[in-house]
Amino acid sequence: MPSRDVTVAVLGATGAVGEQILRNLEERSFPIRELRLLASARSAGKKVRFKGKEVEVQEATPEAFEGVDIALFSAGGGVSEKFAPEAVKRGAVVIDNTNAFRMNPEVPLIVPEVNGDQISQHKGIIANPNCSTIQMVVALKPLVEHFGLERVIVSTYQAVSGSGTRAMEELADQSRAALEGKEGPRNIMPVGKLTKHYPIAFNVLPQCDVAQENGFTLEEMKMVRETNKIFGDDTIGVTATCVRVPVMRGHSESIYVELKKEFELSEVRDALRNGKGIILQDDIASQEYPMPLDVVGRDEVFVGRVRKDTIHPRGLNLWVVCDNLLKGAATNAVQIAEKVATQVGQ
Amino acid sequence: MPSRDVTVAVLGATGAVGEQILRNLEERSFPIRELRLLASARSAGKKVRFKGKEVEVQEATPEAFEGVDIALFSAGGGVSEKFAPEAVKRGAVVIDNTNAFRMNPEVPLIVPEVNGDQISQHKGIIANPNCSTIQMVVALKPLVEHFGLERVIVSTYQAVSGSGTRAMEELADQSRAALEGKEGPRNIMPVGKLTKHYPIAFNVLPQCDVAQENGFTLEEMKMVRETNKIFGDDTIGVTATCVRVPVMRGHSESIYVELKKEFELSEVRDALRNGKGIILQDDIASQEYPMPLDVVGRDEVFVGRVRKDTIHPRGLNLWVVCDNLLKGAATNAVQIAEKVATQVGQ
Repeated sequence: MPSRDVTVAVLGATGAVGEQILRNLEERSFPIRELRLLASARSAGKKVRFKGKEVEVQEATPEAFEGVDIALFSAGGGVSEKFAPEAVKRGAVVIDNTNAFRMNPEVPLIVPEVNGDQISQHKGIIANPNCSTIQMVVALKPLVEHFGLERVIVSTYQAVSGSGTRAMEELADQSRAALEGKEGPRNIMPVGKLTKHYPIAFNVLPQCDVAQENGFTLEEMKMVRETNKIFGDDTIGVTATCVRVPVMRGHSESIYVELKKEFELSEVRDALRNGKGIILQDDIASQEYPMPLDVVGRDEVFVGRVRKDTIHPRGLNLWVVCDNLLKGAATNAVQIAEKVATQVGQ
Repeated sequence: MPSRDVTVAVLGATGAVGEQILRNLEERSFPIRELRLLASARSAGKKVRFKGKEVEVQEATPEAFEGVDIALFSAGGGVSEKFAPEAVKRGAVVIDNTNAFRMNPEVPLIVPEVNGDQISQHKGIIANPNCSTIQMVVALKPLVEHFGLERVIVSTYQAVSGSGTRAMEELADQSRAALEGKEGPRNIMPVGKLTKHYPIAFNVLPQCDVAQENGFTLEEMKMVRETNKIFGDDTIGVTATCVRVPVMRGHSESIYVELKKEFELSEVRDALRNGKGIILQDDIASQEYPMPLDVVGRDEVFVGRVRKDTIHPRGLNLWVVCDNLLKGAATNAVQIAEKVATQVGQ
């Protein structure tokens, strides 16, 4: 714990992740001296409750970071690129939840359970990985440690809250309309800034971000590159297919891995059960496995459907579910902030 | 075309697949002399429209198959086990849409585009594969033919209509309730006959059938065994994870394959484009890819997100979507029936 309380800024305080960051700071009794809520001019003036008091949201400006110790950013990549250097210049440590700096070699990309020891290498900015990466690396960490990891093939089942509050409203509106045989609004999914929008209600969209040259999407390539960076091992071969499903909150992942050593299933289960931040919920015979509706509001990563592959002698199959707004975003950022606070406060 | 019209029985005529079989027989102008609609005692007496006339549903009995040339079964495995031998004894060819006979070595397991030449080997019963298998083998057939197939790792996104009409009603009821912050009925999903039922609305269930000893579900093992049988090649290594999503109709599959030969992506695209029963819908840069809502009512298998793997030199990724009630069930059965009718009628 820090020897003094710290000044914390939250940029993007009114967004889906920002809201959860505030709840996390409150619930975890984060040692706050002063809290500054920052957002775009559009949201400035809004009031947000924090520890029973109303806090007014201010417009983000470079000067708003004066005197800030820790700044939590989740207002989009462009906003982070603009304000992170300003915040750092003024002495803040930025914990950035966007894609802006994740692959920057000067910026540690941190999941505390996996590579928390690298936090201290930061030069002002620490990056929070993509939601779909975070839950996967938490689940894979015990396997890396005990058996070594060669290959990962993952297909995701991602909730719409990954695209923000408005995407959740769109899913609700479209669902209501579809149940009456009507068409709902189509303004956001699959990717807000692209031109074509498809219904997500009672549908499945095999696109979670913009296309890349190699035919994969950015979301898919994030899972590849971030996994390699977090484990510090480019030899782990990752292939991802990222898919949006009509779920409000909670990402699921079907993960096939090839380990470096042969294993007994019981050894793998033990490793997962003892893994940091993991809850093993694995008994298909009793219909026990993780599901998105059950993990909403939980901070852990849930692992089930653990199966020895029937084909590859070192193959293993997993089903991994996590609240994408919590451990997939807000909780991970606040866990990093707690470690930073210890250093700042000294 | 047959030289005479045939007598057709449809067992399970009032179910989700039965309905689509009737629409298919009608739309494809199947050469019918007499149509007998059969179902359980519960549904007997119901009237169903066929070619503008009302046909009364009769209770299925052994005698109901007297004089029947072709019998299409989709009333559950137990019903098929009971009545298929009775129908065959009376001279009918049974096309069975259940799991009852699929792995029986005496029973051809047919997808006309893939192994239609094996239909004539039947001894009275021909099996229709599982919905999730059918769409996968149609998509894989051109790859098997041109490049050889070594390995398949598939994760499914399956619609609730695979569990019948009542499952679709349950998804609608649960969705309505959830949108009002209430709980809907939970009687069917994930598997009607099991004890625990979970909400499927705004949720994802990593179970589509009962558990097997090896930790996989029956649905997952069907995909393995049926694929090997249909291609007549046990060396193709298949791993499946079968997942139910809140979609009414249209199964999606994220498929990773390793081919036997190295390939250019353009060659793979050409092979798929020319593949029987396939529509290639593949341009991520223009946001073109198959989605379940778009394939409802279509007979083809839609393939998109075709990507050369970034890790394995012979690895390929596909996204395959199909109407599970049509090509995944009814259309495939009626296509088989058309071939049988040619023989019967001669």
